[in-house]
Amino acid sequence: MTTALPLNRISAADAAAAIAAGKLTSEALVAACLDQIARREKDVQAWAHIDPEAALKEARSRDGEKPKTRLHGIPVGIKDVIDTHDMPTEYGSPIYKGNRPSCDAACVAQVREAGGVILGKAVSTEFATRHANKTRNPRNLEHTPGGSSSGSAAAVADCMVPIAFGTQTSSSVIRPAAYCGVIGYKPTFNLLNRAGLKFLSDSLDTLGLLTRTVPDCALLVETLSGMPATSFDAVKGLKPRIGLCRTPYWQKADKPSQANLERAAERLAKAGATVRDVELPADFDASADTQITVSAYEFYRALTYERTRFPDLISENLMGRILAGGRVTRNEYEAAQTLSLRLRGTIADVMREHDVLLAPSAPGEAPHGLASTGDPVFGLMWTLLQLPCLTLPCGTGPGRLPLGIQFVAAHGADAALFVHSEWARRALE
Amino acid sequence: MTTALPLNRISAADAAAAIAAGKLTSEALVAACLDQIARREKDVQAWAHIDPEAALKEARSRDGEKPKTRLHGIPVGIKDVIDTHDMPTEYGSPIYKGNRPSCDAACVAQVREAGGVILGKAVSTEFATRHANKTRNPRNLEHTPGGSSSGSAAAVADCMVPIAFGTQTSSSVIRPAAYCGVIGYKPTFNLLNRAGLKFLSDSLDTLGLLTRTVPDCALLVETLSGMPATSFDAVKGLKPRIGLCRTPYWQKADKPSQANLERAAERLAKAGATVRDVELPADFDASADTQITVSAYEFYRALTYERTRFPDLISENLMGRILAGGRVTRNEYEAAQTLSLRLRGTIADVMREHDVLLAPSAPGEAPHGLASTGDPVFGLMWTLLQLPCLTLPCGTGPGRLPLGIQFVAAHGADAALFVHSEWARRALE
Repeated sequence: MTTALPLNRISAADAAAAIAAGKLTSEALVAACLDQIARREKDVQAWAHIDPEAALKEARSRDGEKPKTRLHGIPVGIKDVIDTHDMPTEYGSPIYKGNRPSCDAACVAQVREAGGVILGKAVSTEFATRHANKTRNPRNLEHTPGGSSSGSAAAVADCMVPIAFGTQTSSSVIRPAAYCGVIGYKPTFNLLNRAGLKFLSDSLDTLGLLTRTVPDCALLVETLSGMPATSFDAVKGLKPRIGLCRTPYWQKADKPSQANLERAAERLAKAGATVRDVELPADFDASADTQITVSAYEFYRALTYERTRFPDLISENLMGRILAGGRVTRNEYEAAQTLSLRLRGTIADVMREHDVLLAPSAPGEAPHGLASTGDPVFGLMWTLLQLPCLTLPCGTGPGRLPLGIQFVAAHGADAALFVHSEWARRALE
Repeated sequence: MTTALPLNRISAADAAAAIAAGKLTSEALVAACLDQIARREKDVQAWAHIDPEAALKEARSRDGEKPKTRLHGIPVGIKDVIDTHDMPTEYGSPIYKGNRPSCDAACVAQVREAGGVILGKAVSTEFATRHANKTRNPRNLEHTPGGSSSGSAAAVADCMVPIAFGTQTSSSVIRPAAYCGVIGYKPTFNLLNRAGLKFLSDSLDTLGLLTRTVPDCALLVETLSGMPATSFDAVKGLKPRIGLCRTPYWQKADKPSQANLERAAERLAKAGATVRDVELPADFDASADTQITVSAYEFYRALTYERTRFPDLISENLMGRILAGGRVTRNEYEAAQTLSLRLRGTIADVMREHDVLLAPSAPGEAPHGLASTGDPVFGLMWTLLQLPCLTLPCGTGPGRLPLGIQFVAAHGADAALFVHSEWARRALE
């Protein structure tokens, strides 16, 4: 081990290198994560299901195998809207209490195939929408961790696990990551395989990651998708072209978050980036509403079984959104999809001038209380556009809670997103 | 009843009208379908699961309700790769023997919400790929019904049910429909909600329908998607602009099928259509290979659980295709997706000149024997292009088995596909 960090705090990449070098066992790493969970879970409540013995058994079995991938022996948390054949999968809803799927989702089976260890199921809000579940923000237990990947963000932030899967339809990876002070990464749409995910909005649902380092995002997504390994060697010499994109929703961000983002942009410029303001065409003003039209139409249909059979077990909040989706006409839906397609074309042109855009991650720090998971407004447009996004922790708000800043790259330019985000992370250290 | 047909042979639209008018009960209709199944299932083997008592009970309960939709009381068959909470769902694979999903797929729950009756689960090939299951072609039991929607096509052709859901990733709705002499309809990608479908290829998997009339396709897809009801009143006065598109794969069609398609084109021209040859740009020569690259990359990942845990329960044929998918690099996959996107743009331009294209449905009649479900070549390109397609029975081959001709409309122009296909059906009667 080259690091003096406690085992539960080291990155997946460092841990995997130590395991491959015979200097660390998966069992010791998993045990350290489980110890942290034992210490903190009572307060943080990040997990829907943890079976320490099963996880340790999987880890010991990894220790008996020769590592075949850079993920060998690494524990991974799974958001509880993703199926696991050997753990309950409740989709954050009482309708599915004790539900046992008949197979692993593709991403779970792929992690296992790569030698990873499935540590447990992380709490999701109700069907990955906005109705909060039990998780608290580990930075301040009185505050929401954000959602819908609440448990995944809290567990990674509290060093219970180095990586967890989340999902994003609106801002469900980026927002909780920002609130909990970790890295959230929503890949380009369709980079990670979605088979075995509880579908909510087929056109938007995206599998993403919560981590504490940028290379850990690269490690996992590369292992599963087969995309070439990103080299971080060139990060030092980069001169990024950064577009500061306040987005049409800038006024939804509070003053401290606005100031924090602009300060970050200045610091990045001083560190050698070319930072230019990006004003999106007026068409983009409708992007959030367009995301809402598309997702609502799809929610209503995807959750037909639940809304017709178990209406009393659906939260009032979600039922309201579902029923609103039932009032979206097919023509409105098609118009929204047509506009999305056009906006994707326009943003591709915009992206030609920039390596990454820099945008708000959330309107502010994590709100007080656990009832609301916060406003997803700064995720809606990028999810609709299918672009890869990554939020970095940067600064704190007036309540001393973390703030995030979001980088966005062109469609399919996930590797560019990684190296430029890593450059920025170092520049802002 | 305005029709003298036996109950099991009438269309869904006619039956629903009779039910709404109080002239027919859902129970009588379902009983007639079950009688036909009792007579013929021993030979045809279209069903993976039928529970007559449960179906009759659902029908009686419909008869106690006031019809709210044009689907009220209508029995529908469900391909066995689509989840049902109250019937086994085995995905055509021994891995899932006796599998009971925890919820209904969106389309199943939507049919129930609309007052339809789920008649049973129709046989699928293994995971909706090519490895045949037990179903026989009802036109000649020595021949394949085609696949992968084998049971759905055979059941509708044999008048066991008026409508069945199928799915298409390559040519799994169009080909079996053509082989069995019924209508197969693959909607525009994303017209029907896919939640609860066993995913194979996220980018291509499309829910489709097998029926005996064109209006029945419209009836079901309109009820579920909320698209406006198609009026067939104007069919009589249409002067369709038809593009005869032999496709880059024309040489894969046998001489009788080529002659049959060209004869149909001549008859349509005589009936008043403007028929022009359409030569696709050379880019389209790669469309079938591109579909294979995309689907193979996705198969490998979507079926990770099955291929890593139950390799001995996967057919040799499918395992070969899965492993080939593991050799497709991410770069090759992305190049294939990029080409697909470009071809979709080009075909949109082509479609501006035509109401529909006319193309082969399959290379010939249903092959002899049950081992092969036939060649999907004439579905690959259209599925990749995400366009709505409909195959009509037209003519017979040298073995006196049905041949099909395929109509293709522009993206989202499903209503235009219906009226022009119906015009053609009448013209060819």
